[in-house]
Amino acid sequence: MYYSKLFGKTSRHAPQDAVADSYKLLFRAGYIRESTAGRYFFLPLGMKVQQKIMKLVKKEMDASGAQEMVSPVLHPLELWKETNRTNTTGFELMKVKDRRDAEFALGGTAEEMFVDVVRKFHLSYKDLPFNIYQFSTKFRDEIRARGGLLRVREFIMKDGYSFHADVEDFKKEYKNMRDTYKRIFDSLSLTTQVVESDNGYIGGEYCHEFVVDAKIGESNYLVTPDGTYAAHEDVALFIPANKNLGEELLPLQEVPAVRGTTMEDGVKLHKKPLWQQIKDVLFVDEKGRFILSIIRGDYDVNETKLKHVCGSIELRHATDEEIRGKLHSEPGFISPVKIKEIMDKDVSLLLVADSSLRTIKNAYGGANKKHLDLFNMNIDRDYKPDVEGDIALAKEGYMSRDGVQRLVEKQGIEVGNIFQLGYHYSRLMKDATFVDQDGKEKPYYMGCYGIGIGRTMAAIVEMHHDERGIVWPSAIAPFQVHLIGLNLEDEEVNAKCKNLYEELLKKDIEVLFDDRSTSPGEKFADADLIGIPIRLVVSKKTGDKIEYKERMSKDSKLLSVDEIVKLLK
Amino acid sequence: MYYSKLFGKTSRHAPQDAVADSYKLLFRAGYIRESTAGRYFFLPLGMKVQQKIMKLVKKEMDASGAQEMVSPVLHPLELWKETNRTNTTGFELMKVKDRRDAEFALGGTAEEMFVDVVRKFHLSYKDLPFNIYQFSTKFRDEIRARGGLLRVREFIMKDGYSFHADVEDFKKEYKNMRDTYKRIFDSLSLTTQVVESDNGYIGGEYCHEFVVDAKIGESNYLVTPDGTYAAHEDVALFIPANKNLGEELLPLQEVPAVRGTTMEDGVKLHKKPLWQQIKDVLFVDEKGRFILSIIRGDYDVNETKLKHVCGSIELRHATDEEIRGKLHSEPGFISPVKIKEIMDKDVSLLLVADSSLRTIKNAYGGANKKHLDLFNMNIDRDYKPDVEGDIALAKEGYMSRDGVQRLVEKQGIEVGNIFQLGYHYSRLMKDATFVDQDGKEKPYYMGCYGIGIGRTMAAIVEMHHDERGIVWPSAIAPFQVHLIGLNLEDEEVNAKCKNLYEELLKKDIEVLFDDRSTSPGEKFADADLIGIPIRLVVSKKTGDKIEYKERMSKDSKLLSVDEIVKLLK
Repeated sequence: MYYSKLFGKTSRHAPQDAVADSYKLLFRAGYIRESTAGRYFFLPLGMKVQQKIMKLVKKEMDASGAQEMVSPVLHPLELWKETNRTNTTGFELMKVKDRRDAEFALGGTAEEMFVDVVRKFHLSYKDLPFNIYQFSTKFRDEIRARGGLLRVREFIMKDGYSFHADVEDFKKEYKNMRDTYKRIFDSLSLTTQVVESDNGYIGGEYCHEFVVDAKIGESNYLVTPDGTYAAHEDVALFIPANKNLGEELLPLQEVPAVRGTTMEDGVKLHKKPLWQQIKDVLFVDEKGRFILSIIRGDYDVNETKLKHVCGSIELRHATDEEIRGKLHSEPGFISPVKIKEIMDKDVSLLLVADSSLRTIKNAYGGANKKHLDLFNMNIDRDYKPDVEGDIALAKEGYMSRDGVQRLVEKQGIEVGNIFQLGYHYSRLMKDATFVDQDGKEKPYYMGCYGIGIGRTMAAIVEMHHDERGIVWPSAIAPFQVHLIGLNLEDEEVNAKCKNLYEELLKKDIEVLFDDRSTSPGEKFADADLIGIPIRLVVSKKTGDKIEYKERMSKDSKLLSVDEIVKLLK
Repeated sequence: MYYSKLFGKTSRHAPQDAVADSYKLLFRAGYIRESTAGRYFFLPLGMKVQQKIMKLVKKEMDASGAQEMVSPVLHPLELWKETNRTNTTGFELMKVKDRRDAEFALGGTAEEMFVDVVRKFHLSYKDLPFNIYQFSTKFRDEIRARGGLLRVREFIMKDGYSFHADVEDFKKEYKNMRDTYKRIFDSLSLTTQVVESDNGYIGGEYCHEFVVDAKIGESNYLVTPDGTYAAHEDVALFIPANKNLGEELLPLQEVPAVRGTTMEDGVKLHKKPLWQQIKDVLFVDEKGRFILSIIRGDYDVNETKLKHVCGSIELRHATDEEIRGKLHSEPGFISPVKIKEIMDKDVSLLLVADSSLRTIKNAYGGANKKHLDLFNMNIDRDYKPDVEGDIALAKEGYMSRDGVQRLVEKQGIEVGNIFQLGYHYSRLMKDATFVDQDGKEKPYYMGCYGIGIGRTMAAIVEMHHDERGIVWPSAIAPFQVHLIGLNLEDEEVNAKCKNLYEELLKKDIEVLFDDRSTSPGEKFADADLIGIPIRLVVSKKTGDKIEYKERMSKDSKLLSVDEIVKLLK
């Protein structure tokens, strides 16, 4: 490709609101342009990289036994109604009507579509298992769409769905996919951490994110230093340290407490440790039920864990009006003690206690009245939770479950995920069954496997760049060679350049040839920005030879055409 | 691929409403499934074929110098407002709002998007010309969507847009694309006719469809037997035959005419030839203007030509009420003679005469009153058209412009089109300019080039099948070899099959291996239906050899593994 002919050349400046290095570089080097916020053009250079990524993903998916197909982009909304996903999707669903008033969803994921096509075939156990996947445009009506390709509203996703006779068969495919993803990201020069994560309302233990360690990422997760444990903060476990378990239980006692409403105000007033205080967080769920979650004062409530413990889909914080009007308590002074006795009789309240309350004795905190606190609250004796469980948010420095290593907090970019769907979709959708060996119709046991292609591209740039530009791994570089011609006004040099260009093309080497009449400095800077692995320079100075330099090397060497071809093949 | 593992196996019956052979076969053989009317799943077999088609299209497009990129699927509606296409597109546009109430069009074509990304770069003449293209999902809210992949509401289209400094440069690319398309369809084993066609409101002479001759197609076009002329019926030209030009002009005469309102009623009553009658067709255009089109009685009015002659975008037939109430004429008895004198004064009427009225004398027809006709109407003497031109619909048997060959009518499938956009979009869209050599900002001169991928696939099946199934051209077959194992319960045969399968895979030959325990008859029938070019059979009978048969051949032969590998490479 002649650079002079390329559509999408370099720019000096990135957009003012660009924060992520990957966005700045992909913009400046001429790989992408924003259409509207979160929707991008992939320019010819960007397209080449995207296609190489997709090709590598496809290669490993096919090798794993999965089969590529494709579903329409517009999903009939009836399907999403069958699974009640028109209301419960985490991402905002975009809908469109056609001229016959038929409603469609712009696919965010395609579980219903794939179940729908599978059920058309009335399969038997002999046809199982199989894993079918597609690359297709997905839509997410995100509130925020910043960071270039890291968080977008429209993107190509590889989404795969596996169909099994039972959970045992699914587990084999889950391992197969986990290994396949590892190979995919390895081939893309991305080091990924496989992180346990939350499977939302579907639940189950088989749910992992593939995360690239990067400060710009939006996935927060915790790991043990030896790497044997990695879990998203939504689900990470830890062992709460025992505190004053040796103490004797003291009698419950009301004390005046003219203080503010924060935990710190309590610590300051009573001069007792934060961990001994009870933290009360009051939520209301989608059914209007009040959830009073209580936890040791130095810990925070993890809303995801809390949802699972309560079986709630959505949680919001209760208002001051609700706390006073319905529970007859006081913001900042809520207490589990006797709260069910003072609240309105028609209120439904679930009292959920974190297990960490078993690690302390004689706790202090509010007394459900303004400027009144309680000392020596003890679980079982003074209050009885409806549910007791793990609702604590893990943090850096907490003890991991192995009892030896402390957790380390990390941020990363989620580039892929794998998770079980179980019977969730096949039970909600009619006739999503196969005929088993015993002649009976049974629902499919399913799994789901996604990779965001654009985000993967951004993650690669985040991992592979320096202050001068992108440093593409060879496997996905848009071209293998960036050929720079200098002194092109010199006919001999010009001819030599063109000959070399043609020679390399004949050998099936992908070459971007900077044939412009701009300054050497500009050409070198553009080459570094664009990030092609090998730079070749032909000029008056190079004589019979060609200057060869790798993108990250400081040294260049003079080589013959033959030597270069040999190196590149 | 083991056929037992393939998702998407053969079916005995096609959908009841399937008419097109391509739909019946692609359905039955397991290539596609309908989601909702006009929206299709491409199953793994169909996906392989689609990808091979796209690969061949890409190969030739890249070789032509065009550059692949991709635009978002959702187009900001503001862009379509800039070009006024929200109202004037021939296909119904689908629109969607996001949660911020921003409006988007589901792209039917992408002229605005490509102009928009190009104008972001503020290019100069040095960057010109270039041709940028994409493969992307397009949406058309068609009223009817039948015929499988021949007419759909969602499909992958290769759409390309070229940008030039002037019309001369565009013409070079137009020829380049015409040649490229020829090579593309040749490589897809499709014989295409390049048919002149209508460029709608953009106009201009550079507009061609690539049509595959097929009765099932919806493109009607006319050709000369020697193939030097081919034009869509919307634009096809012919020479009207002179009739009674030797006659003297007779005096205009009113005659009583108790008859029905059709042309045949006139012929019957007056016992004069149809060609001597004047056919009057009254339209109303989008501005409310009446258009009275008149033509020789044996010809029909071509609405597309009429629109161009009048500069109208939309035409509808006038109602009986309008004919009587506004024009004070009578349905079935309209006449150009004196109509402007009797109609309401505030009516705007354009009288358009077809040139064929110059080939007859002393015409007869209505007299603007019920049961009254006129004899001996003659152009210029009795009525003066506002516009005279070619508004006649060409038909089979009419004389072509060469004056020698008669036109032949054909139906075909439009698989591609190329046309000039000229300055249409670059003048309507702000800043769609480049800096020319003289330092001035000038609008781009543009061209546009499309290929419907799914329809191309259907056209290939229409052209390449027999009563037993599809007969894929080797270049786009989903697999090169269909290996059938018989007597697989016999361990020796089974092992031989698997060894052969592995051997072929090692040689990079794509093999579908029917490893099922079904009957030989079923396996043979499925192989013919699926249409892979080479069938290999291994059974007890074949001994050390393998039965080799080409899909369209009646004969098979016994060959060794080495001989087969040699044949296939």
